[in-house]
Amino acid sequence: MRIVTQSEVERLLPVGPCVGVMRQAMSATSRRDVTLPIRQFMPIPDAPGKLAIMPGTLGEPACFGIKLVCKYDRPHDDPLGTHVGMVMLFDSVKGIPLAMIEGSSLTAIRTSAASALATDILARKNATRLAIIGNGEQAMRHVHAMCAVRAVDHINVWGRDIERARTFAAAVADDTGIPVIACKSAAEAVAGADIICTTTSAKEPVLSGEELEAGQHVNLVGSAIPAAAEVDDVAVERASFYVDYRDAAMAAAGELLGAIERGVVTADHIVAEVGEVLTDETRGRNNDDQITMYKSLGVASQDLAAAHAIWRMAEAENKGITVDLMD
Amino acid sequence: MRIVTQSEVERLLPVGPCVGVMRQAMSATSRRDVTLPIRQFMPIPDAPGKLAIMPGTLGEPACFGIKLVCKYDRPHDDPLGTHVGMVMLFDSVKGIPLAMIEGSSLTAIRTSAASALATDILARKNATRLAIIGNGEQAMRHVHAMCAVRAVDHINVWGRDIERARTFAAAVADDTGIPVIACKSAAEAVAGADIICTTTSAKEPVLSGEELEAGQHVNLVGSAIPAAAEVDDVAVERASFYVDYRDAAMAAAGELLGAIERGVVTADHIVAEVGEVLTDETRGRNNDDQITMYKSLGVASQDLAAAHAIWRMAEAENKGITVDLMD
Repeated sequence: MRIVTQSEVERLLPVGPCVGVMRQAMSATSRRDVTLPIRQFMPIPDAPGKLAIMPGTLGEPACFGIKLVCKYDRPHDDPLGTHVGMVMLFDSVKGIPLAMIEGSSLTAIRTSAASALATDILARKNATRLAIIGNGEQAMRHVHAMCAVRAVDHINVWGRDIERARTFAAAVADDTGIPVIACKSAAEAVAGADIICTTTSAKEPVLSGEELEAGQHVNLVGSAIPAAAEVDDVAVERASFYVDYRDAAMAAAGELLGAIERGVVTADHIVAEVGEVLTDETRGRNNDDQITMYKSLGVASQDLAAAHAIWRMAEAENKGITVDLMD
Repeated sequence: MRIVTQSEVERLLPVGPCVGVMRQAMSATSRRDVTLPIRQFMPIPDAPGKLAIMPGTLGEPACFGIKLVCKYDRPHDDPLGTHVGMVMLFDSVKGIPLAMIEGSSLTAIRTSAASALATDILARKNATRLAIIGNGEQAMRHVHAMCAVRAVDHINVWGRDIERARTFAAAVADDTGIPVIACKSAAEAVAGADIICTTTSAKEPVLSGEELEAGQHVNLVGSAIPAAAEVDDVAVERASFYVDYRDAAMAAAGELLGAIERGVVTADHIVAEVGEVLTDETRGRNNDDQITMYKSLGVASQDLAAAHAIWRMAEAENKGITVDLMD
């Protein structure tokens, strides 16, 4: 088996190529050519953390595996971040391990690539103006991911801490060469934008539906629990709502579940999974005034597809550390 | 983190020292200084196998982890065997990976060491005559394990295939220097024995309670599913019955569950867990005529304790392959 560390993950699977990998993964997910058992969370006694256990199988390429993530509260400046772990990848035919791949970089790349895929099939073709809400790792990842699928020529950013937002804006401008403005409010940031990515850790909405404009596409990426929502009920109601995987959405899509609970919409508000749009374009955007919204929660099949792609490339280049456990 | 392959596992944790590790593990298990979530089995579509997912936490040493085993039907002569996998070990305080350790050797060693521990606290002190039922890997493992806790001076072996049993007997004699006889029946093998280990893949009993003698100690190791039993109801009824972990026994101890189902005994027939005997000797053997029986099913805490011991020794000797996933 091959061990692939963080820097190799970043090198082997840039976000652009990963969009194609997510295309396969989301298509397989919506064909249900996957097994996606319930995630398990094991609390660690006397420790500020838990182990998240996310197994799954993929039909094509035929593989299975499990993502293990130590979710620990760590100081803000801890280089480990809050998520430490790996994806263990196995060959379905032989029942043998193929790879252990660093998990946080893989997750970050596949998450932003999945948003890019959703954007590619849902945003207006001529979208050029990007708004990024939040200043964390996924904020920067999403800048690059959006640039991989649209000719972005202007970026607005907003974060609760204006100083951090300015630092982030400078970093984005430096990274991309695209003009970036740090805005004073989320409303200001999204005004005139074609694509909006929310990547905050906010529990309460940072954006209202009244601030959205006709034709925008929104990626909701920051929250993954039922009790948190980055946009309000009006935003959900105004938008054509897309998800990565219905079961996950109905379990953890805080924005949607809140709106359902308050009677604003019903479960039918989900127009389609991204994978369903891939096979039936009529379920995607129908006109330039429609507001489309993609709720990202993450699916084990994305991890497996990304892990398999990384493993294939590491094999081809003979990179990573090879280990024979049976030695 | 450290990667420890099969040969290093065998070198770092011989069965003798592992008995001491199991003493700690079983004591912690019975104190419930452990978390033992339900095992999960994920079938792999279109493949002759499944992934077994066995997470757990241990209080002392403070660690957690997960054993992943690909249980695949493979040809008899496949060097991989039916179980391929690893134990992933993490540090509870820091929430970081410590080791990936080859799983089949670790499991084989800890299983036989746990039987040795049960034998050490339950068999007569002067036990010297060993009977091994079955000729597989665990049969040989149990020979060495029993020799680690009692001064074995004679070994009877029996297996369904007499030729294989003879080959096995020769190998055992060669390995141990102890006289070994390949017997024509299980009854003949256990006659006069002090310690009996059943390590078969039999679904139906290979040994009847009528063949057991006063004072014997029996380790039931071969079956781990409710539908299989290596000994019959009479054997269960005649014996003082011990287990590694009550919850596991009540879920999968085929011999006990069958006897309960047929009204021969009740759940109260379990005298104690091995870890309970460790802290209260009065719950162990009371006299030289008692038949004691230990049902081995395996507990995640055993895997964690063994993995932690292997990791500690690999660290001390700077052995195994060191990998920094965050590199």
